[in-house]
Amino acid sequence: MDAHTLTAELKRPTKGHELDSLFKPRSIAIIGASSKELSIGNVIIKNLVQYNFKGKIYPINPKEPEIRGIKAYASIFDVPDHIDLAHVIIPGKFVPQIIEDCGKKGIKSVIINSAGFSEMGEEGIALQKAFLAKAKEYGVRIFGPNCQGIINADSEFNAYCNFTFTYPKPGAISIVALSGGVGAFIMQSLFDLDIGMRYYASNGNACDISISEVLKYYGEDEGTKAIILYTEGFREPNEFIEAAKLVARKKPILAMKSGRTEEGAKAAASHTGSLAGVDIATELIFEKTGILSFTNEEEMCQAAMAFSTQPIPKGNRVGIITNTGGPAVIAADELVSAGLKLSPLSETAVARLKETLLPEATIGNPIDVVATGGGQHFRSALDVLMNEETIDSIFINFVTAPFTDTDEVARQIVEVSQMKRKPIVCNFMSNLSMERFQVTAKILKDGGVPCYSFPTTAAKALGALYKFHKIQSRNIGETKMFDDVQKTKAAEIVHSITSTAKEGTHFLPSSEVYQLLSAYGIPVADWRVANTLHDAVVAAQEIGFPVVIKAEAESLVHKSDMGGVAVNIKTAAEVKVTVEGMKKKFDKTCLKFFIQKFVPGGKELIIGVTAQRDWGHLLMFGMGGIYVEVLKDVVFKLAPVTEVEAKEMLSSIKAAKLLDGVRGQSGINRAAVIEIIQRISQLVTDFPHIKEMDLNPLMAFEDKTIVVDARIKI
Amino acid sequence: MDAHTLTAELKRPTKGHELDSLFKPRSIAIIGASSKELSIGNVIIKNLVQYNFKGKIYPINPKEPEIRGIKAYASIFDVPDHIDLAHVIIPGKFVPQIIEDCGKKGIKSVIINSAGFSEMGEEGIALQKAFLAKAKEYGVRIFGPNCQGIINADSEFNAYCNFTFTYPKPGAISIVALSGGVGAFIMQSLFDLDIGMRYYASNGNACDISISEVLKYYGEDEGTKAIILYTEGFREPNEFIEAAKLVARKKPILAMKSGRTEEGAKAAASHTGSLAGVDIATELIFEKTGILSFTNEEEMCQAAMAFSTQPIPKGNRVGIITNTGGPAVIAADELVSAGLKLSPLSETAVARLKETLLPEATIGNPIDVVATGGGQHFRSALDVLMNEETIDSIFINFVTAPFTDTDEVARQIVEVSQMKRKPIVCNFMSNLSMERFQVTAKILKDGGVPCYSFPTTAAKALGALYKFHKIQSRNIGETKMFDDVQKTKAAEIVHSITSTAKEGTHFLPSSEVYQLLSAYGIPVADWRVANTLHDAVVAAQEIGFPVVIKAEAESLVHKSDMGGVAVNIKTAAEVKVTVEGMKKKFDKTCLKFFIQKFVPGGKELIIGVTAQRDWGHLLMFGMGGIYVEVLKDVVFKLAPVTEVEAKEMLSSIKAAKLLDGVRGQSGINRAAVIEIIQRISQLVTDFPHIKEMDLNPLMAFEDKTIVVDARIKI
Repeated sequence: MDAHTLTAELKRPTKGHELDSLFKPRSIAIIGASSKELSIGNVIIKNLVQYNFKGKIYPINPKEPEIRGIKAYASIFDVPDHIDLAHVIIPGKFVPQIIEDCGKKGIKSVIINSAGFSEMGEEGIALQKAFLAKAKEYGVRIFGPNCQGIINADSEFNAYCNFTFTYPKPGAISIVALSGGVGAFIMQSLFDLDIGMRYYASNGNACDISISEVLKYYGEDEGTKAIILYTEGFREPNEFIEAAKLVARKKPILAMKSGRTEEGAKAAASHTGSLAGVDIATELIFEKTGILSFTNEEEMCQAAMAFSTQPIPKGNRVGIITNTGGPAVIAADELVSAGLKLSPLSETAVARLKETLLPEATIGNPIDVVATGGGQHFRSALDVLMNEETIDSIFINFVTAPFTDTDEVARQIVEVSQMKRKPIVCNFMSNLSMERFQVTAKILKDGGVPCYSFPTTAAKALGALYKFHKIQSRNIGETKMFDDVQKTKAAEIVHSITSTAKEGTHFLPSSEVYQLLSAYGIPVADWRVANTLHDAVVAAQEIGFPVVIKAEAESLVHKSDMGGVAVNIKTAAEVKVTVEGMKKKFDKTCLKFFIQKFVPGGKELIIGVTAQRDWGHLLMFGMGGIYVEVLKDVVFKLAPVTEVEAKEMLSSIKAAKLLDGVRGQSGINRAAVIEIIQRISQLVTDFPHIKEMDLNPLMAFEDKTIVVDARIKI
Repeated sequence: MDAHTLTAELKRPTKGHELDSLFKPRSIAIIGASSKELSIGNVIIKNLVQYNFKGKIYPINPKEPEIRGIKAYASIFDVPDHIDLAHVIIPGKFVPQIIEDCGKKGIKSVIINSAGFSEMGEEGIALQKAFLAKAKEYGVRIFGPNCQGIINADSEFNAYCNFTFTYPKPGAISIVALSGGVGAFIMQSLFDLDIGMRYYASNGNACDISISEVLKYYGEDEGTKAIILYTEGFREPNEFIEAAKLVARKKPILAMKSGRTEEGAKAAASHTGSLAGVDIATELIFEKTGILSFTNEEEMCQAAMAFSTQPIPKGNRVGIITNTGGPAVIAADELVSAGLKLSPLSETAVARLKETLLPEATIGNPIDVVATGGGQHFRSALDVLMNEETIDSIFINFVTAPFTDTDEVARQIVEVSQMKRKPIVCNFMSNLSMERFQVTAKILKDGGVPCYSFPTTAAKALGALYKFHKIQSRNIGETKMFDDVQKTKAAEIVHSITSTAKEGTHFLPSSEVYQLLSAYGIPVADWRVANTLHDAVVAAQEIGFPVVIKAEAESLVHKSDMGGVAVNIKTAAEVKVTVEGMKKKFDKTCLKFFIQKFVPGGKELIIGVTAQRDWGHLLMFGMGGIYVEVLKDVVFKLAPVTEVEAKEMLSSIKAAKLLDGVRGQSGINRAAVIEIIQRISQLVTDFPHIKEMDLNPLMAFEDKTIVVDARIKI
């Protein structure tokens, strides 16, 4: 250990979180610092300086004595102090050696801004592997490569380790974004909205430190009140699910996933080169983990303003205070659309308002204090709503009528808002090119009142707060594991197929399909396999007429289209005619017959499963027939599905009422279907090999539900 | 005629549009001008002066020699010149006399800012009637009362006849808003977005000059490129429909109607005191007349920015140019959701781009010119898309990368945009607190390129342009009048009911219902009325079994709930049992029996009609049974319904495919249903007395469609 390393060792900060060296650096080396204006190696130093970084900056450049007026060093080993974090902005081929050097120097985190790795084909992938190996060896954590970097806006650090151009003011919102372009404009948007930011991270190729890890870090950070997440998909969905579940319990995660249309996904694939495919899985991950999902980034940023200062409402009952009519109508429309409710005022409240408001005020919900209403009138309305037990949140329309003391109105709003008892959002309608109203606006902003320029925009923000309340209140419970399942038997069936089958995916023969379902306690219509006409007749008689007969051979996947299925066979004679017809039609030596109980009547249901690129399964539920084919009335959940989620599946299809029976029809046994969904979930979770499953239809009756046709692909 | 009046007469402008004196005043009197700061009579003078009004201002005040430094007159008769427009800001009781004075002075338009008229009960209504009578007598047009006023931002006039506080820059968007509060913040929003405005009008009680009249005026105004309309309902829907049809053909009308939820409607009713009820009729009026409807006022204002400078696209094919990946993904998602299509590039285009773009650029749609791409690269991409026959519009993502000449990029975009061949919208991602990028932004703005801060917001604006293209391309055709209808006979039936019935609304007896339908050529199941058991048997035999028997008496509206309906009666014996059972059950002397052919099978359809507060009818169409009861899968149109609209009704229910037959079922004869819808439309248009009509169900077969149950309320 040389002198430098020793000194560094001694100066190392006391052990905190592993990512502290990344997000809370006290000393930063810029390896590849450059004196060339606008180069990344120059811009990062400029940003650190201009953003008033509170630690030490060490430009590393073998040729220059100083860069931007800061002493430069030829090598990190020449730096006399410990270095927490290094930026690496040098050609890819030198990176593995530099990571080794960083390790030797005791640097714990490295941001590799350089590109030219896994996004650039074979050679790049090899380089990435090489430096990762060094990083593992020396315990160096890598952020990037091919990335922007991080920002810590906390004034204790002011660490702008990034080459973007927006200098955020400190605050409570942390951002993590896969796409640097989107991350940057979200940061810019918070800046434009005058919302403070805490951390920013955009990690490009994300070869080591992942979005999930950053998310967890934000989750543990006391200064982060809410998190904004942007992604185009997940590399490690299970890791993300674990992290998100943990964090979402503690604080709101506002997220947006783009690539939700085929064209969007294509565009995403072309610029990231790795994630692709329109998937609804991300939305389901958001739902399952309690993330607030947005499809409009402007709405997400606007909502962040409310989340950064306001408490979460305890229910859906909102009170509106307005000093102008029309905007209250617009607000009411949007609030109600977002699931909020304008509760009527109590008699006490009405009496109090009659006493205190102007005679021309409208007392109700909305409370119209009228344009001439001043601070005292707003205050009285605010106090009344704060004390109403039937009000959970407050929406204010505040037009800066020139003939009122608008500053006083603002001060009253701020005073009540700062009690933090119920969330307040304000649609602030003013002309901010007038100095007088800039003052009013500043009082509101400084007081932490989220202000918007449109009633709908403000209402959507309050709607987001309420939606988060709903998410928080929803407890999906734990996954139920049925202990009566025959997992070993199921494993044997699966193994018998996977071990003998050719490469690729395969449909299971019907007998294996039904055995697998039975092994997991899923009721199926009684069945037999018959090799001969005689066997077929015997099988039908054993099962009891009427029966269904299906011709079975590997090539006959679309049996019914080809005449390989006959239903409602009522006699032995009909069995004979049917079997002989099929033999003639298909004329194959390997032809077998699958004989099954014909179960008419009941409501047709469908349950489907699709594997998600080897990390999990999507379950689908719906009513069969036209409901799925024409009306596309189906609902999805991510496996494993809990009982609560299974119940939600039944109740969230549009035709849900039909399950209870309408127009004199009988309803189905919901509990039976809910159990089947959970058993299917357990089956596919136990056997990730299952690529696809279609139970179509299940026949649901008042007492029971039976699978009458099923396909499984492995 | 005294000297003053004569002079005024001589100076009167040459005859133009009647509303020119309102919107293009050369001289304005403020009757009730006040020296009191912040009073309306003072603020209006201040606004006129500060907005640099190009005409003459005449404060009218009996006591003050001057107001805000402008010579005041004791009476309008003292004003030596002609006066085009007067503001009236005096107590209501003096208004009738003042209107008479205005008439004598030759003033053609009066804005009554004062409140205290129809919105304030009996006395106010009487006053309003009184001054209106004077106005009619002297040919004075009234704007208001209880209103803000108008603004003409054209620099030839600069007429700020309003007491609001935003001074718009001149431009091509005109605003008309029922609610002054909403009008004002829309104006403010255009100002904030740096969009020029032309006219503004908010007419309060609107006792004379209506929204429709203003709309027509805007329609004829060459300087108005697009119109923004805000309303909470219509006082004279038919007048509006006529005006809107006319204007929407010439230029885009962007409109928003609030009160779309019950709570919103309630809030609207409480502040306007006159318009109420959640109605879907306004949306249908917008649809029928070709108005672009919004539910989000921010999106409406953002769209206005694009409409104010960009041409309307000729189709749905969009090309994206971007210099950053993620935002292009977001944009693609939103564009596709709005119905646009990212068409692939031609070989020529690809070849040209390969030649001209940077090697790291992605060539496709989106075209990613990458962050280092400069003006020439953007220009090349723009030229290519302008020349692509398969591209109708262009979306640009432009992040101001610090290492590029962003001004040059802006100049290139402007140059291409000003060719006005295809619409361009730009998502401009920058930090506008930096002077350098303010310059870039100004180049774009001055060049008329609509710039947005979010990809979704920009994409929505382009989506609105495209939606307007679709609206313009849609021709609903003329209403078909069937000349085989027996209008006289129908009139007799209606008259026989309305003349003998008691006050209020009434259900027609079944026989009248079916006669009315038959008179209009609507096929109904064969029927007879029987007074006795014997008649019932004969009737059933004449019609042919099976039949339906309905007990009929005025009080039996919900017959089937009460056991007053028996279906599928197959024999004379069954008729006997049924009729005797009903006689026993209801035991009324006035009891009659309605015998009708039982028509089983076929698809159940439903057609419904509801009158809209005496000005027209809404037609509803859907599939009967669970589709209407559970899935609420119905569609509405405003009568009269054209053939195109009737076709749209059939194709726009979610279950539309079922009409063609799926899963082996046969389809229905669409033409027959389309004709029935048009005949029903003609019937209710001919007889506005009809309050409600329910054809539920109609039985639709492959060849024909027959009404099997119907109710009409008059």
